[in-house]
Amino acid sequence: MENMTFETGLAFAQQMDAQDDLAAFRGAFVLAEPDLIYMDGNSLGRLPHGTVERIQAAVETEWGRDLIRGWNSGWYQAPTRVGEKIARLVGAGPGQVVVSDSTSVNLFKLVMAALAMRPERDRIVSDTLNFPSDLYILQGCVRLLGDCHRLHLVPSADGIATDQQALRDAVDEQTALVTLSHVTFKSGFLYDAAAVTERAHEVGALVLWDLSHSVGAVPIELDRWGADLAVGCTYKYLNGGPGAPAFLYVRRDLQEEAVPPIWGWFGQRSPFDFDLAYEPAGGVARFLAGTPPILSLLAMESAVDLVQEAGLARIRRKSVRLTSYLVYLVDTILSPLGFALGSPRDPARRGSHVSVRHPQGYQISRAMIEEMQVLPDFREPDNIRLGLAPLYTSFAEVWGAVDRIRRVVEEERYLGYPAERLPVT
Amino acid sequence: MENMTFETGLAFAQQMDAQDDLAAFRGAFVLAEPDLIYMDGNSLGRLPHGTVERIQAAVETEWGRDLIRGWNSGWYQAPTRVGEKIARLVGAGPGQVVVSDSTSVNLFKLVMAALAMRPERDRIVSDTLNFPSDLYILQGCVRLLGDCHRLHLVPSADGIATDQQALRDAVDEQTALVTLSHVTFKSGFLYDAAAVTERAHEVGALVLWDLSHSVGAVPIELDRWGADLAVGCTYKYLNGGPGAPAFLYVRRDLQEEAVPPIWGWFGQRSPFDFDLAYEPAGGVARFLAGTPPILSLLAMESAVDLVQEAGLARIRRKSVRLTSYLVYLVDTILSPLGFALGSPRDPARRGSHVSVRHPQGYQISRAMIEEMQVLPDFREPDNIRLGLAPLYTSFAEVWGAVDRIRRVVEEERYLGYPAERLPVT
Repeated sequence: MENMTFETGLAFAQQMDAQDDLAAFRGAFVLAEPDLIYMDGNSLGRLPHGTVERIQAAVETEWGRDLIRGWNSGWYQAPTRVGEKIARLVGAGPGQVVVSDSTSVNLFKLVMAALAMRPERDRIVSDTLNFPSDLYILQGCVRLLGDCHRLHLVPSADGIATDQQALRDAVDEQTALVTLSHVTFKSGFLYDAAAVTERAHEVGALVLWDLSHSVGAVPIELDRWGADLAVGCTYKYLNGGPGAPAFLYVRRDLQEEAVPPIWGWFGQRSPFDFDLAYEPAGGVARFLAGTPPILSLLAMESAVDLVQEAGLARIRRKSVRLTSYLVYLVDTILSPLGFALGSPRDPARRGSHVSVRHPQGYQISRAMIEEMQVLPDFREPDNIRLGLAPLYTSFAEVWGAVDRIRRVVEEERYLGYPAERLPVT
Repeated sequence: MENMTFETGLAFAQQMDAQDDLAAFRGAFVLAEPDLIYMDGNSLGRLPHGTVERIQAAVETEWGRDLIRGWNSGWYQAPTRVGEKIARLVGAGPGQVVVSDSTSVNLFKLVMAALAMRPERDRIVSDTLNFPSDLYILQGCVRLLGDCHRLHLVPSADGIATDQQALRDAVDEQTALVTLSHVTFKSGFLYDAAAVTERAHEVGALVLWDLSHSVGAVPIELDRWGADLAVGCTYKYLNGGPGAPAFLYVRRDLQEEAVPPIWGWFGQRSPFDFDLAYEPAGGVARFLAGTPPILSLLAMESAVDLVQEAGLARIRRKSVRLTSYLVYLVDTILSPLGFALGSPRDPARRGSHVSVRHPQGYQISRAMIEEMQVLPDFREPDNIRLGLAPLYTSFAEVWGAVDRIRRVVEEERYLGYPAERLPVT
């Protein structure tokens, strides 16, 4: 990591923007409200201009004009074609990634397949920082399999990082599966995935990474790590659009052994033969299930191309600069106002979002949205989450977000907002 | 059913069109190639003009401008909101239908839930006319549950209808679940769903209907039938767009007992509390899983509104007239050329598509597409499937399709096409 020194004034941020080799990518996105500071690209990435055109063509030309012929001119191959594009962003050689379903459904498929590959083992290891939906899926799998497995969640003392020694100790000879978020959703803690994978393999356990909060922002090397399985989301840093379909990875040499629990026709060897008996497709394609949502999938494809073009090395370098700069501003400007950093200080252990904690965090986030044209999101109990998307977040925006948070607190603007939560926070 | 007499000339078809009280709805769809006769609305419905506008607003305004705020201004409620719209098309009172995932994934969820509600029973009854993907899902469930269940497929003597007495006999005291396509995908056979449901309930079995090939074309009365469970597809007669998300129905008084196998955050009581322990949402919403593909879902919603507006009574009346007219033309014009009807003759037992069988069916279908501007689809081994979508298929198109098939055969145009299948047929 480079040495970085920062200054508190706006001029410094503007100077950083002037030196930003990704600055031109900001112009690839729709900026409908120029004064809006969008700090939630870690939850829903911005709309690329190219996607507007792509989806218009998908709707008007491919569906409207080509009709059913669309399946033979690109739709049918889309889950594997787009899977290969994502493969290049997660360090996976060809034939190991497909786009399918939601992250939750993909996680379900891979957890069930993993537990069936380790039938003599009854332990699943995760942590309390994992995305709760991942834990729900695990709990559902445990119930479905007759409550014979024990789900061990490694705790976190500070809510920011998991104790790595406790994790190592938790992974034992009875462990069938270790499954973690590569970057945790609340604190942005970034796991040393190679080390965890190595530890799991020492005792013969399988590893499943959820890449939802890292893909497109953090370099990922699934093949190099020796990871067994992975899932991930495409509507965060990949800018795929709301609810865009997710992806999954199955390491090549597990593909024949891994049995999908959901036997859908897109995972069948020859779906249009309409044989009555299921025969799995070769390779990772057997983990496809039903017909994919083509409009959402093609919208996402065009956005993935943009990330590819920018390149993950440049993206990560800018991401580290952005988050480090934000941590500096939190320390110098927000800490005196009662805020605490809710993310790791070490950039090597941090993804591309930063949480700042405050007892009135929810009300402050409401005031930011309603009065200050800043869009963060909020995570219980007190985390204002600021997502920094290197393709379009500028240093001046980071400065502006902190400045506006400062004003919300100094001017007590948050006092007018109730603590009752909206459905989606 | 009304008495219908037909004539073979085009003038008759034009006269039928002039009397068609749904004729105006044709103008609600994009007709990019005016000479194209589209006979595949049973596989992928046409694009409504309203959907073009709806998806543009969803992309440019809701995603592009509102960004994450879209979740609090309509997206989050979409699975239940659109579910209620579909409920009115399938005879379901409120609180029983949600939009979620693909038909295959929904079928998986409901089959697993059903088998868990009848743990002492080991028999599943379906038929050989069911959509093969449904059978794959069943086979996958049986394997997942340790191969303790027997899947009994009631055969069909003619490939058109299932022997109803054989079906009654197959449903016994060991039967946990009866699951069938309400309208079968190849022949268009329409089950007497009330009678089958009643028979299943006599012996304490649960019933799961796949409505994919009937919803939007055939009246459905899930509540009146007493159906337990149902799934269905939205991209056929509902015109929801390629791979639009599917729906599922769980009868109200089963909702507390039915346990979803996939525990995703959209099925959690309060997903944004981010509690570590799963608590199912009340009612049918617990069968939601991951984040839905919003662009595909909103496109579909606008199309469903159009079906609602036309009304199923009018749709069914026109559908029966269209298919009966087509059967008449097959008998009078195509039978002498070696074609055989592959669908039921009784309109009361027929959905909205008609299969015509011919030994060179595949090559004929290729010639129809490549030279004749007719788009049917093909189902192995010899079925040319002609889907008649009452909202936009005209009687003149039915006449034209038959006339062009006649020319393909009389002029031996099909001889130039190889028998090797395209990936999607």
